[in-house]
Formats: sequence, structure tokens, C-alpha cells
Amino acid sequence: MVDIPKVLSPDEVGGWDRSADVVVIGQGVAGTCAALEAHRAGADVLIVERASGGGGASALSSGIFYLGGGTAVQRHFGYEDNADEMAAFMMASCDPLDPLAVRRFCNDSADHFDWLEDQGVPFERTEFKGKAVYLTDTTCLMSTGNEKLWPYSKIAKPSPRGHKVAGEGENAGAAGMAPLLRKCEDEGIPAIYDSNVVALVQNAQGRVVGVRVKQSDGIIHVEARRGVVIAAGSFNLNHEMIAENLPLLGETSEPLGTPANDGAGVLLGLSAGAGTSAMDGVIPTGSIYPPGQLIKGIIVNKRGERFVAEDSYHGRTGNFTMEQPDQKAWLIVDSEIFAYPENKFANHQLVDGFETVEEMEARLELPAGSLVRTMNEYNANAEKGEDPYLHKAKDWLKPLDKGPWAAFDISFDRSTYLFITLGGLRTGPDGECLTPRSEPIPGLYAVGASAAHIPRNGKAYASGMSLGPGSYFGRRAGRHAAGANWTG
Amino acid sequence: MVDIPKVLSPDEVGGWDRSADVVVIGQGVAGTCAALEAHRAGADVLIVERASGGGGASALSSGIFYLGGGTAVQRHFGYEDNADEMAAFMMASCDPLDPLAVRRFCNDSADHFDWLEDQGVPFERTEFKGKAVYLTDTTCLMSTGNEKLWPYSKIAKPSPRGHKVAGEGENAGAAGMAPLLRKCEDEGIPAIYDSNVVALVQNAQGRVVGVRVKQSDGIIHVEARRGVVIAAGSFNLNHEMIAENLPLLGETSEPLGTPANDGAGVLLGLSAGAGTSAMDGVIPTGSIYPPGQLIKGIIVNKRGERFVAEDSYHGRTGNFTMEQPDQKAWLIVDSEIFAYPENKFANHQLVDGFETVEEMEARLELPAGSLVRTMNEYNANAEKGEDPYLHKAKDWLKPLDKGPWAAFDISFDRSTYLFITLGGLRTGPDGECLTPRSEPIPGLYAVGASAAHIPRNGKAYASGMSLGPGSYFGRRAGRHAAGANWTG
Repeated sequence: MVDIPKVLSPDEVGGWDRSADVVVIGQGVAGTCAALEAHRAGADVLIVERASGGGGASALSSGIFYLGGGTAVQRHFGYEDNADEMAAFMMASCDPLDPLAVRRFCNDSADHFDWLEDQGVPFERTEFKGKAVYLTDTTCLMSTGNEKLWPYSKIAKPSPRGHKVAGEGENAGAAGMAPLLRKCEDEGIPAIYDSNVVALVQNAQGRVVGVRVKQSDGIIHVEARRGVVIAAGSFNLNHEMIAENLPLLGETSEPLGTPANDGAGVLLGLSAGAGTSAMDGVIPTGSIYPPGQLIKGIIVNKRGERFVAEDSYHGRTGNFTMEQPDQKAWLIVDSEIFAYPENKFANHQLVDGFETVEEMEARLELPAGSLVRTMNEYNANAEKGEDPYLHKAKDWLKPLDKGPWAAFDISFDRSTYLFITLGGLRTGPDGECLTPRSEPIPGLYAVGASAAHIPRNGKAYASGMSLGPGSYFGRRAGRHAAGANWTG
Repeated sequence: MVDIPKVLSPDEVGGWDRSADVVVIGQGVAGTCAALEAHRAGADVLIVERASGGGGASALSSGIFYLGGGTAVQRHFGYEDNADEMAAFMMASCDPLDPLAVRRFCNDSADHFDWLEDQGVPFERTEFKGKAVYLTDTTCLMSTGNEKLWPYSKIAKPSPRGHKVAGEGENAGAAGMAPLLRKCEDEGIPAIYDSNVVALVQNAQGRVVGVRVKQSDGIIHVEARRGVVIAAGSFNLNHEMIAENLPLLGETSEPLGTPANDGAGVLLGLSAGAGTSAMDGVIPTGSIYPPGQLIKGIIVNKRGERFVAEDSYHGRTGNFTMEQPDQKAWLIVDSEIFAYPENKFANHQLVDGFETVEEMEARLELPAGSLVRTMNEYNANAEKGEDPYLHKAKDWLKPLDKGPWAAFDISFDRSTYLFITLGGLRTGPDGECLTPRSEPIPGLYAVGASAAHIPRNGKAYASGMSLGPGSYFGRRAGRHAAGANWTG
């Protein structure tokens, strides 16, 4: 069992060492946006950050913001996205707990992009039309989710909604965080670093009124006159919480994030009576693409059956793979599309090349006849441009009939899947923490990865659904905690 | 915590008092179908039933089988349903763990209907086109799910798939069970009643080889040479399991089923190492319709917001309502559509009539301005025949602008919601029990409500998704346990 810290009463605290209107725990993208908005709404803000500087996991990320509804970049390239189409896609795919939160995010999404640019976050007017997991150059716009995938393509008009910060390399998130952190400094928002919030203080009426902070030289108590915003990241690196909620993640799976993503934020919320959501949601990513041609292959499980449309977003494919017997799966290709997966980190091993499908089936120890049957059926349908059950899009359909064939092992116990957890505290549309029965806890907010993501399972995630909603709901929580209305 | 019975080793048993090839636990629809198929495949079968006779919760149900793909009744009325459309709907709405199981069910669904008729289960060639929760007459075909609901209507061609047994009254299930039970008798399949399976016997290799049965006059041990089929129903009436998995069900919620639906089947499976799925899935039903005109009203939560398309299947509406703040919601109508809900059991109370929306908002203690804003927005869109976020179908859209207005309280703590749990043991496409890592447990099967349903949450359920898949996978498990191939 995971230990939840004890919540303190004001009596136990005695007196306050310091006081602010709004205390923000964590200075990743959600906390930074909360602090900026609370400050600009006239609140006296204090940021409390465990690390020696701001940035958090956001600064280690690939810097993609999922935004749409007609952003400046979408319009630049002629995409006619709008809030309705974006909301239709997210409502249909994400199984959101709170439709109103989705509606607000989609309605304000294009304006929120402008706001980010106004803060100095750099976005180019450039576009990538291929299939990639992330880009290492500064290109901005890209499809990062399941918009073009059946059945979502039938529900809403697909538009690319991944907006990457114009930073080089795998960790472009740093280039997005730098201007936001600079704004905090320029506007004189105080922050204390190397400071770990170890408990919340809650009064007899249930209102959260302050925090206990552990620093290298002792403990201090900080009063929060209006509210506490938990923006302390995910529980990716809390091994106990992972084992309890996500037992199928293999031993070779690797969490993304910083050591501070140990679930402290979630546990603080639980201590004050907050509920959680989607704690078993995860994106395990071990993409088979690039190169895109591998999507024309098929993925089969230990029963020799396909189980996911291979053109799914890589996190969706990973999630389905995780649920297969023994977490085992193989990517099967023929000679026409053969290539090694470029994803070096995932380390998908080539099992071998085979002159016949029968040999391959035997070597993979699949049930007799199963792979032959699966491939015959797949090839006959692909010939007609159809995939009647899993609905892989036509562009990726071709009969796999040009031997020899090859198989890559993409099983969870062989390959390395990077993962991001999606669960966290239950929150309302202003980031207010909710009890399991959805009642708000006065004075307490959770945003970013300490809150449950909008998508409740990894099958619905798109790259950018952490930074996009995280930054937006961070802003809303900041204003709400400061006592101000949302003005967009 | 819920106590799981201890699994026994053959050594602990000593010797067998009785022996069979296949032991079927429970004689509801799934167990009966399993027994018939195992027997007809040449196995020596023994049915072990806790009650004094067969029927189980199936005989207490409204007798609806969810079947499609072009059944005789669908064809009779000119519906062009096929396995692809049915599978597309179920794949998109049910979030199934096992696409292959869905494919098999849809492929064989029309044949399975014929099989049921061949056993003597009576179905009329009659159709009901209105909106009802269940019918009390003998009419057969009816839309019972979310097929016509956005977004599913965009993904697959809607067809009615609820097939009701030709029995009178609310419990037409009995008329479906009677001929199936008669077949068991006619074919000489032995059954022992008042007999409670209290433990499974599992050998050192992990194979389930028998059961311990408690009877009024003592304990007996029954060997199962080929397999044990758990068909012992749901955990609806296990208060501990409900509290642990479904904390949001209110105290006024009432389980459907028989006292034997106490989770014993699920717990037996767990004792042998089986995994579970969808344990937090539930259909809470307290339908607002009939009459259908009430669907033209809107449902709002404590924040004065809509949260579900009001034309959803009643279990979907109930599921969304359960997730709202404090589990509270109201149905709002104007004078043009005013009517009392006919659902006497749910007992939705009229709060009052109101001359203005402002008065109603104040009386319901909704945030100032919230209901006025929601209704203005709804009415303006309805005027254009639109519902841009929740997508209620055009037929049900009309501006609610003909005062006076009325509100019905449909909150979980006021109304009575009947519920059916969807969770249960993880199973493969032949009903074989699977470990949490999806490996089969040799000799162990689970079907019907002891297994997890295909839909993993109540938002995707349709009436008949218990009896339909339950009877079909019961047949498959029976044949598989008997060592026979599936022949349809």
C-alpha cells in the first residue's frame, strides 16, 4: 500500500512562517501558468519547487502542445479546424469525466495558443506531414494523435493539432519553459527552490489553508489565504503506485519524467480528501514507426491474431499490446516493406527472416495455422482495400505477399516501452480538486500531471495532451484561486 | 476486503465422490447453453446449481438477447444488418479487451439466433419502433442501445438488435429459460440442486480438476476430467464487492438479480489465479423515458450544466449521472412536453412548476445564472436543429421556451436506480479464464455474468448484452471444455 501523508490542522501548525494568497506547488508548465495568471489577477503568489530551479518534466519533454480549434498555425496552413470539431474528437475518443472541461479547453484553445506566443513561447509557421513520434528539429505543426484513425475520422474532421515549440533536439520542452520562467522572474513572482511540500494544512471546515514545506535546514509553514495549486507532476516514478495501478507494465518499461514525479502531488490531494480518476490509464510507447512503411505490416499476438489497427498513434498501439496474452506481440512485414524500426530506444529485435509464413509461425510458437489464416484473411481484404474489423486506413493497406517475410519482437518483456501515466486527482473545469463524489475541496486545485488527464486511457492520448491542457487549466486554476473570473 | 475462497489441491480432497467430464456451475442461460453444447459434443456433464431449480437471474430478466448481423427477425423487417456493421458498432462503443471475441460474436450472431429458436426459445416476428426501457408484451425486435446515438450513428449503420423472448410481463426471461431447461432434462443432462460450489480444486500444474460442493447434508467433491465452467452470475448482490468497486452507487440503488448473484463465481475464479476486468463497470438505470417526449427536455447537474445527450440509452444516462457532483441531476421540461415519467420504480419526484427559469434555478440551488445560460444556449442551438457538443439527435431537439417550466429530481440519493454490474473474470474468445497477464488457466472457463461483459462500462451497454453474449459464449465454452471444435 502507498502511504498517504497526514493532513495537518491549523492547531498542529501553530503559526505561519510565511504567507501568500496563492501557493503553487511545482514550477512545470502548469504551475508556471497558474502562478502567472494568479499574479496578474492581483494575488500575492508563492511558488514552492522541489528542484533547484523551474522547468520540471515539461522542460524534459518534447515540447508539444495539443491545441486546435483554428490556431494561428492551423490557419496559416489552411486547416479549417474549429472548436466543435475538436470537441467532437475529444468527446468521442477521450471518455472524459467532465464534458464541460473539454468544451472550455476546445473553445479557448486557439486563444490559448496566442497567449502562449504572447508570453514568448516560440512556435514556427512550419509543418510536418509525415508519420513520426516526435521531431528533433524546430518544425511546429504535426498530427500527433488518432484524428485520422477509424472510428474518429468518421466522427470529426481531422486536423493536425500537435504544436511543437521551436526548440532543437528531443527535449524542445526546455525552449518552451525558458520564456515562461523568465516571465515569472520579470514580474517578480517569488519562488523558493529545494523546497518540498510534505503536507497540506486543512481547517475544520475542510478548506485547505496552507502547506508544510521541508527545506534542507528545517521545516516552514506557509499560509495560503486563497488557495493551494498542486502542480507537482505525475506518479510515473513512484514504483509502488505503478505496481498497484499498472501491474501489466513490464520490468523493462521505463518511466518518463523527473525523479520528482513520484506521485507526491497526487498523495497530497488524497490526504485532503480528493478523489482520483484514471489511475490505470497509461501510454506505453514503443513505436514501430518511423519509417512509415512499417505501418503496412501487421501486428499479431500469441494467438496469431491482429488486435489493433497498425496506423494507430504509438501510445494506443502500446496500450493494446500491453493487454495481449503475456504482453507479447510481433510486427510482421514482407520483403517489399522491410526496414528496421528507427526507434532505437524501444530496441525491437528482428527475430529472423523466413522463406514461408509457416516457418515464421512455427518459430514464433504461434498456434498451428493461426498466422497463415490471419495473413490470408488480411491479404485478401487488403487486396480489396479493406480492413473490415480493425479499419486500418486504405493508405496503409497492401497484401503482405512478397516473401521472404520477417518478424520483429515488440513484446513488453523484450522491447523497452517508455510510459507516461494518465491518472491523477479528480478536478473540475477550473482545476478545483474534487472528492470521489465530485464535490469541490475549498482552497485546493490540481493541474498538469498531478490531475487526471482528459483522456482516461492511453488508447485516446495524443502527444501534447499533457502540455496543452496542463498549461490551459493551470491558467484557469491560477485565476480561480486568485478569486478572479476567467476572461480567456 | 472481500474474502477469496482458498483453492484446494487434489491431496487435500483425498478422493472424488462423483466424476464428470465437464462440471457447469450455475444453470442460468450461460450455464444451460454450456451444458447443452458440452453434452452434445459427447462429454459427460454435471450441472451444479445453488438454487432448487434452474433459471437463475436470466429467468428474472426481461428476456432480451442482443443479436444482429442479419437475424431472421431483422431480415423479416428489412433491416440490412451485417456482421461488419455490428462489429463496428461494438468495437467503437464497448472498448472491448478482446477484438476477436467481438468478431466471433458478431459473425455468428444470426446463426446463434437460429440455434436459440431451434432449442424452442420463442421469438415473434414483431417489432416495436418507439422508445421504451422494456416491453411487457410479446413484441420481439426493438432498438435497445446507443446505435442511433452520436457518435456511434456516424460509425456504423444503426439496426435494432434487441430480440425479446415472446413472454408476457416484465420477466419474459422465464419464457426463454423454460425450453432451454426442458432440453437439458430431455437430453438427460444430470443436475444437482441446492448445491453450492465453495472451492475449486487445482493441481500442481495449475489445471482445475474439480470442485468442492456444499449440500444441506454435507460436503462432496466432484472431479471435472475436462473442465469447470463457472456460470454463477454476477456480484450485484455482494455488498462488499459493490462498496469496493462501485462507491458511487447510492444507498437507494437496488441490485438486479437473485440472492445467488453474490460474486461467488468471480471469487472462485480469483482463487485459481484468474484476473478480472471492468470491475468498476455498471449500468445504473432510472430511465426518464417513457414517455419519449421527455427526451426533449434537458438534464443538468449541480453546476447547472448539461452533461449527457438526453437521447442516450437509459443506462448510459444513469452512468453519466452517477459521475456528476454529489450524484445530483434534474430533468428540466417546459409546458409543451410536460409529462410524468412512467418509470414508477425510479420514483423521480417532481420538484415543482416554475413561472420563470430564474425561479427554478434558485429553487434547485444552482449557481446564479447557470441554468439561464445553459437554457439560452440550448434553446438557441435547438432552434437551428443543432446540439454542437452533446449531439442529441435532431428529432429530440426543440427550444424549451414554452413556460411554465418544471423540474424532476433524478439524483442518485432521491431516485431509485436499479443496477447491473459489468465486471467479472477475464476470459478469452472461448470463455477460457485468463490470468491478469491474459494466459489461460487450463480447465477453467467463465461465462455469463461471472465473466466481464463485452462493454467495459455502462455507457456502452445495450439491453440484451447479458443474455446475447452470455448464451453464445456459454455454448463456445461448453464445446471447448468438451474438447470439441466450434462449429457454430
